[in-house]
Amino acid sequence: MTSLIVHSAAPFNAEPNLDRLRASFVTDAEDFYVRSHGDIPQLDAATHRLRIDGLVDRPLDLSMPELRDLAPHRTVGAVLQCAGNRRADLQPVKPTTGDPWAPGAIGYARWTGIPLYEVLRAAGASAASHVAFTGADVVEEAGQRVRYGVSIGMQRALQDDVLLAWAMNDKPLKREHGYPLRLMVPGYAGVRSPKWLTSITVQDRPSDNPMQQQDYKLLPPDIDAETVDWNAGLTIDAMPLNSAICTPQADAILSPGCTEVRGYAIASGRAVARVDVSPDGGRHWVQAALQRDPEEPAAWIFWQTTLDLPAGEHELVVRAWDEAGQTQPASAAEVWNFKGYLCAAWHRVKVIVT
Amino acid sequence: MTSLIVHSAAPFNAEPNLDRLRASFVTDAEDFYVRSHGDIPQLDAATHRLRIDGLVDRPLDLSMPELRDLAPHRTVGAVLQCAGNRRADLQPVKPTTGDPWAPGAIGYARWTGIPLYEVLRAAGASAASHVAFTGADVVEEAGQRVRYGVSIGMQRALQDDVLLAWAMNDKPLKREHGYPLRLMVPGYAGVRSPKWLTSITVQDRPSDNPMQQQDYKLLPPDIDAETVDWNAGLTIDAMPLNSAICTPQADAILSPGCTEVRGYAIASGRAVARVDVSPDGGRHWVQAALQRDPEEPAAWIFWQTTLDLPAGEHELVVRAWDEAGQTQPASAAEVWNFKGYLCAAWHRVKVIVT
Repeated sequence: MTSLIVHSAAPFNAEPNLDRLRASFVTDAEDFYVRSHGDIPQLDAATHRLRIDGLVDRPLDLSMPELRDLAPHRTVGAVLQCAGNRRADLQPVKPTTGDPWAPGAIGYARWTGIPLYEVLRAAGASAASHVAFTGADVVEEAGQRVRYGVSIGMQRALQDDVLLAWAMNDKPLKREHGYPLRLMVPGYAGVRSPKWLTSITVQDRPSDNPMQQQDYKLLPPDIDAETVDWNAGLTIDAMPLNSAICTPQADAILSPGCTEVRGYAIASGRAVARVDVSPDGGRHWVQAALQRDPEEPAAWIFWQTTLDLPAGEHELVVRAWDEAGQTQPASAAEVWNFKGYLCAAWHRVKVIVT
Repeated sequence: MTSLIVHSAAPFNAEPNLDRLRASFVTDAEDFYVRSHGDIPQLDAATHRLRIDGLVDRPLDLSMPELRDLAPHRTVGAVLQCAGNRRADLQPVKPTTGDPWAPGAIGYARWTGIPLYEVLRAAGASAASHVAFTGADVVEEAGQRVRYGVSIGMQRALQDDVLLAWAMNDKPLKREHGYPLRLMVPGYAGVRSPKWLTSITVQDRPSDNPMQQQDYKLLPPDIDAETVDWNAGLTIDAMPLNSAICTPQADAILSPGCTEVRGYAIASGRAVARVDVSPDGGRHWVQAALQRDPEEPAAWIFWQTTLDLPAGEHELVVRAWDEAGQTQPASAAEVWNFKGYLCAAWHRVKVIVT
């Protein structure tokens, strides 16, 4: 077992050290961040059942072997990322709710399962607008204790990269990652990929669950916990362009001369086109070399460059550009929201060369 | 004939006044910006021919009536926008090449024609990677006088919203907008929608034309005309999230009290989710009301809000957010490039209340 930085023991929320995260393009399950909203359920693949109901012609109640036999298996490489990744960068602007995630609430894995649409087809799903999901975990949301529940739009649900997954990097899911079955919606915030999946409901509206209705929304900067109107928020599904420096880390003490700077960048629905690195807080920029997996459009990119840093204190900065010429905002203040979601401002790391 | 703000008479480059642009959700052809790279050709629909060649089984040479008879006609509502829209906002940072476009080098029209893929299918196009286009206009690019030529990727070319269009807002194209035939690639910079179209070539590489190879690329901020390596640039196709204040205009003198603030916002490939307006340079924000056409995903959105401005000087600002929680950079300095493309920083307008 590798070591994770634990933000909370119950529910268990933890992320890897950034050096470790950046060491492998495919993130090992042991190094993969964990975000739980309740206790981790004790489930058994031998007895686990998945129900498919709602606006379907043939409600199903499947064992894991029945699910596996339903359609050819598929493996998709995809980033999973918490909507709160990099929240710690927002909190110096003004406090937020939620754990202070560093840029480690993200990882890239190869997920194996069957496409969700195969199960929807087998159940004879109608042309409804939403697909809702329930997990086995019990969570506290909006003052209620409820089973975890969220939904995604039918259009996304029918795309063939959305999987009901039982394996991560060719091994059965670990308990904390959703054993024996989870949803995987590449490009969407982790909240929309429920773990410990027990039921799928086809319906004509988003999930009524407080997890869907009163959480994981992007709210305007003038809204706080006292004044919140959840209907004024944007439901967080796809996530914005982002990038982070993984090494050196904040407050690193370096020797003068060449320093390798490495990190990741991630876009959603569009490719990362360029990554700029600044040795001086954003006054000058150099272009980093990019490593990507062209076979997997939902992969992240790894970038690296070498900076020649003289003695003194330096603010290293990274920003990415996507293929539509979109880039990131410079300052965390520009994206602050009281729930601390979607921190996609330039990532800044102070280092000392001595 | 309405009046346009003329940046250059030859080639003819002009944009509408922003009040006029914001007055109608569908932009009248008379109010639509014009970007030419050479003289406007004198063409006649009665004699015009379109050639389709390259990696095709059956090269075609079509008259306009033959083209119209090839497939059912289709009308698509789409924004057309110059890659240099809002370039004037970059030039105070540091000079750029190109005309100083205000935020008026954009418009929304309903384009009628037949999908490009129908013509590719009729010609028996092979599974090549690019489709190149040539216009009748002669342009000066990279020191050469050549026919206008660009290309787009085959994947985009096959989507059914890409049209060979002969009409704009239910009327034949005006001469300056490409009469008798132009390409329309919704969401892509105007440069990829050539006017006065004479030939289509299916090929396994981007166009060799200097317009494709040595222009309309997004270059890093450290590159200038002396040091330019065009291969280091990102070919500008889709464009970033953007927004602009159309009224009041810069340096407007207003009376104290309620001021209506109106403008547009545009995303590419994703919907605009929220528009924030600031009365004070970005310190505070209110959310604007949005007007959109849900039937037309490539439409812009119109927004408006009311600000109560006391006497004094104010910097009004607008920024948009898309449905992936992506927002715009704050400062033009963050997106400056020596060609002056893709200015998508917050749009700022100084007004005086007296």
